[in-house]
Amino acid sequence: MAMLLKGKDAAEHVYADIRTRVEEWKKNGKQPALATLLVEGDPASAYYARSKQKVAEKLGVAFRLRSFPSTVTEEELLKVIEELNADEGVHGIMLELPLPRHLTAAAIEAAIAPAKDIDGVTPANKLAVFTGSGKGLHPATPQACIALLKHYGYALEGRNVTLVGRGQTVGLPLFHLLQREQATVTVCHSRTPDIASQLERADIAIVAVGKPNTITAKMVHRALTVVDAGINELADGSICGDAAADLSEAVSAFSPVPGGVGTLTTAMLFRNLMKAMDLQAEQKGAVKP
Amino acid sequence: MAMLLKGKDAAEHVYADIRTRVEEWKKNGKQPALATLLVEGDPASAYYARSKQKVAEKLGVAFRLRSFPSTVTEEELLKVIEELNADEGVHGIMLELPLPRHLTAAAIEAAIAPAKDIDGVTPANKLAVFTGSGKGLHPATPQACIALLKHYGYALEGRNVTLVGRGQTVGLPLFHLLQREQATVTVCHSRTPDIASQLERADIAIVAVGKPNTITAKMVHRALTVVDAGINELADGSICGDAAADLSEAVSAFSPVPGGVGTLTTAMLFRNLMKAMDLQAEQKGAVKP
Repeated sequence: MAMLLKGKDAAEHVYADIRTRVEEWKKNGKQPALATLLVEGDPASAYYARSKQKVAEKLGVAFRLRSFPSTVTEEELLKVIEELNADEGVHGIMLELPLPRHLTAAAIEAAIAPAKDIDGVTPANKLAVFTGSGKGLHPATPQACIALLKHYGYALEGRNVTLVGRGQTVGLPLFHLLQREQATVTVCHSRTPDIASQLERADIAIVAVGKPNTITAKMVHRALTVVDAGINELADGSICGDAAADLSEAVSAFSPVPGGVGTLTTAMLFRNLMKAMDLQAEQKGAVKP
Repeated sequence: MAMLLKGKDAAEHVYADIRTRVEEWKKNGKQPALATLLVEGDPASAYYARSKQKVAEKLGVAFRLRSFPSTVTEEELLKVIEELNADEGVHGIMLELPLPRHLTAAAIEAAIAPAKDIDGVTPANKLAVFTGSGKGLHPATPQACIALLKHYGYALEGRNVTLVGRGQTVGLPLFHLLQREQATVTVCHSRTPDIASQLERADIAIVAVGKPNTITAKMVHRALTVVDAGINELADGSICGDAAADLSEAVSAFSPVPGGVGTLTTAMLFRNLMKAMDLQAEQKGAVKP
């Protein structure tokens, strides 16, 4: 039976750190606060906002939910982001996805102040992850994939990592973060003719395609570790990852969905909120605790 | 004996296209012009500027060399770039490297107007290559590697490409351009323990490390094609690539240094100049020929 890489275990360690940092900020007279923009109409967006709210409450972080009817215009959202950018009592800003069809996520996200952009979606933060400047806030899901492996004691330097998926949200930024971990990375995608052969020499596979059964037991070897960053909703309403259920018997370790990467992603957002507070303090020349 | 992938053959095709385009622009009353900033003191920088000048003359492109003493300040260079950005008679701007130690290339390059940035060095163009927006001007050397392969009839879709090197100038942008060609790419680097094993399944290897003998005959297989993007100056003043001389007998095809990628890189800069003229015409709402 393969070892389970559980997001919850890893997240608890992160949350313990964050709680300490939140207390320090409060002693210094600052209430850490996260604002999220929710355009009504999509159950997934609403679910993500609620999940964050619950975690915020546990951590002592103030949570400001800004809800908008599904008919809201881009201009109205941009105006609210401008207000939140200028508000010194708000330290992190997120836009919940997916949005209604008449709104373009990238155009709205680009307006977020980079130092408050806790999911690394602005052009400045995208460039930072690609160029490895060491500055900026990196997207949460790619960070969660790496943090999960590190929590379970995996060394990435010199290891062969096969990434399946090259999306803008997970695959590509993760490729760059893995460079900084000194892994040797192969990137597979929909036009890769034989993904199984690309897994032969891999120590670790990370899947982020958004399609169930992208990796099955037949494609893997016993020594492989699989990190599953996919979240797919099935017809019966249940959630599954990109890896097939039969994988559990065929590999040495894997992250379950739900309960793996996704769980840790929320923790990474709040870790970014702490980093965002440091960045904002630095920008103002203020002392951080 | 391996097939030679010669930059000159590929470049001649590109230059023929550019000559036609230059004539069209001239008929429309516009003289295509390239400006290059040369800080004196480094023979390599001066050599690159002269090479461009020769090609510009052959193509009918106006070449404006702006030379500065090695004591020039960043402020002085930024002021000249500002002037060139505003000058409608200049369509491409380059800064010759290397620079004297007191100057930082990235800080100066960032000032170039993105639509005149024919080597893709500004933050806006870096972001464009990374996000695959399809907009923007891409760096010349990575484009040359792909153009060389295409000239010799290589299909990249579905092929295994092993990239050795992950620098900001060649390796990383090339990784992203290869995604758009639908190749399956593995990126090796100084911390990859066994590069030979990463070449086993490769159809094509592209080397861009800047170190002689990075790939030797012992590390390759007979069916491999090697594109060498390295340019190294040896103690005797001669130039060699990153691939060892013994490679020629061990692979199916390779690009020589000099005479391979480097030769085509200059052609890519002038192809970018033509693209830059289109971009600038679009920005002004003007008609392009």
